[in-house]
Amino acid sequence: MLKTPYLLFLGDAPDQLAAKVAQGIKDWRPQFCLGQLRLEGCRADLGLPEMSVEQARAAGAQTLVVGAANRGGVISPAWLDTLVAAARAGMDIASGLHNRLSHLPALVEAAEKAGTKLFDVRVPQNDFPIADGKRRTGKRCLAVGTDCSIGKMYTALAMEREMLARGMKATFRATGQTGILITGSGIPLDAVVADFMAGAVEWLTPDNDPDHWDVIEGQGSLFHPSFSGVTLALIHGGQPDALVLCHEPTRTHMRGLPHYALPSLEALRDLALATARIVNPEVRVTGISVNTAALSQEEARRYLEEIEARMGLPAVDPFRDGAGRLVDAL
Amino acid sequence: MLKTPYLLFLGDAPDQLAAKVAQGIKDWRPQFCLGQLRLEGCRADLGLPEMSVEQARAAGAQTLVVGAANRGGVISPAWLDTLVAAARAGMDIASGLHNRLSHLPALVEAAEKAGTKLFDVRVPQNDFPIADGKRRTGKRCLAVGTDCSIGKMYTALAMEREMLARGMKATFRATGQTGILITGSGIPLDAVVADFMAGAVEWLTPDNDPDHWDVIEGQGSLFHPSFSGVTLALIHGGQPDALVLCHEPTRTHMRGLPHYALPSLEALRDLALATARIVNPEVRVTGISVNTAALSQEEARRYLEEIEARMGLPAVDPFRDGAGRLVDAL
Repeated sequence: MLKTPYLLFLGDAPDQLAAKVAQGIKDWRPQFCLGQLRLEGCRADLGLPEMSVEQARAAGAQTLVVGAANRGGVISPAWLDTLVAAARAGMDIASGLHNRLSHLPALVEAAEKAGTKLFDVRVPQNDFPIADGKRRTGKRCLAVGTDCSIGKMYTALAMEREMLARGMKATFRATGQTGILITGSGIPLDAVVADFMAGAVEWLTPDNDPDHWDVIEGQGSLFHPSFSGVTLALIHGGQPDALVLCHEPTRTHMRGLPHYALPSLEALRDLALATARIVNPEVRVTGISVNTAALSQEEARRYLEEIEARMGLPAVDPFRDGAGRLVDAL
Repeated sequence: MLKTPYLLFLGDAPDQLAAKVAQGIKDWRPQFCLGQLRLEGCRADLGLPEMSVEQARAAGAQTLVVGAANRGGVISPAWLDTLVAAARAGMDIASGLHNRLSHLPALVEAAEKAGTKLFDVRVPQNDFPIADGKRRTGKRCLAVGTDCSIGKMYTALAMEREMLARGMKATFRATGQTGILITGSGIPLDAVVADFMAGAVEWLTPDNDPDHWDVIEGQGSLFHPSFSGVTLALIHGGQPDALVLCHEPTRTHMRGLPHYALPSLEALRDLALATARIVNPEVRVTGISVNTAALSQEEARRYLEEIEARMGLPAVDPFRDGAGRLVDAL
């Protein structure tokens, strides 16, 4: 969907965290990153070559990606001149922020004149069919979580990287705006109309070589009442052969819902299998991915050992340990 | 949402089945039905007074409801003059068909001039919040099915009627276009954007008297891969206290999916409870509603007895037997 290479636009990001989308692109797709463009006051730095719009264009940049968010997660008025200049210079512009590029008249006009495109990756770019549930060729792995925002995207990206390093055929399939910006394609599943959710996932993960793995980014959680329907559509549209359970051991309640406790890994395993078997009776839970950032090295080691003994499955923190054992288990 | 009473427009419906939406309104909300308007060639008849637009308006009709579908489920060009005349005469127009009233320029112009409204009930009429999962006051009953189109709406409407006849506080909550046209309000859940599905259901079934029952129209099935996400959002947004299982015993495969068998009632019970307990640990399956239209009276009786013994729950066909025993069980 997005043309590469990118110029990563960091705007006036007040700190490194505000540029986490750009950081994700640089971490997971360094080959897409030509340089960074920072405005006055920017306190984020990816260590990429600093480029103006003109320099980036001369170096071959095809798309300016808005890789930072200001407070509120919207496109800042202070960024407009740069975005317009990039469109005029012949670059597409891509953003995952809440307000839309296509709602900025000056930018729309510049892009139309230059024949460049504006990609609001929160907005579905296609019409999707109703799912037909037919079995597809190729293999699929899906990360499911005890909660939202628990490391499902990171786990899937780490598994894809490990699989490619081993010479396996693998494709990360993005289902959210950050994943789409990182990899340049995908579907913003939470913005798809209800009837077409599962069909969108089928569309995203079509027939493939028998030894090819789609590593599908998870969304929400079967146990999160706000978003569970999205998760089930992902399970039924994705037809996973392998499920990886994702967990964060120090979280005291479901994200945004102080009145809901997290389910156990056993409960997640059982409900994920019960639902996934409807579309793929052969599905198995193959591993557990734990975000142990809040634990010490020693606490993390003991926690993972305990989980591994209890569940009878490889349990790793892919950030600390890599995703090798999760891939071994496939 | 829709103003009553209605003039039911049957168009040139080729047979009675083509007017099933109008029939549903007449069956379930006879007090809303002032008369019927039929064009030349119409072979459907509800037995209501025949009225022209002028006569209906003079009698107080507030909304013309398109109660028929031609082949393809779209608004027929042959209907346009009548719809325009109704709008000019001061009536709102409501339709649940695929093409939109609001895409017919002549009708839009007439409605604007007359200050009347066009309701495409397949299109959500509100912005909905993200679900917060908080427990609400009042009681809720949800019909869930082994498949789509298996009698969930009929079951819920029959239960509401029985409850009201007993002097109980009850409200049918429509979640699809036919239910919306029948009752005049509701949400077309399958047309809501994924992130807001469960929030829309919470919005539809707000806090209420402790002894009030929302009887919520089900959609899809947890076991139907095309629409299961919608069903789960309905379960998690609806927070049911009572689940009624709906089934059709002669169906050989899931609707539209020849490669999927129907689940057993036991499988439906187990998965519906496992998911519903996440938002309401007290939820119970209270009864079974079977559409026995394809069975003889005697076959139906034996089938229901067998199910009842096997599942330990009241099992009725509300069309043959009424919904009394389903309401007793609440």
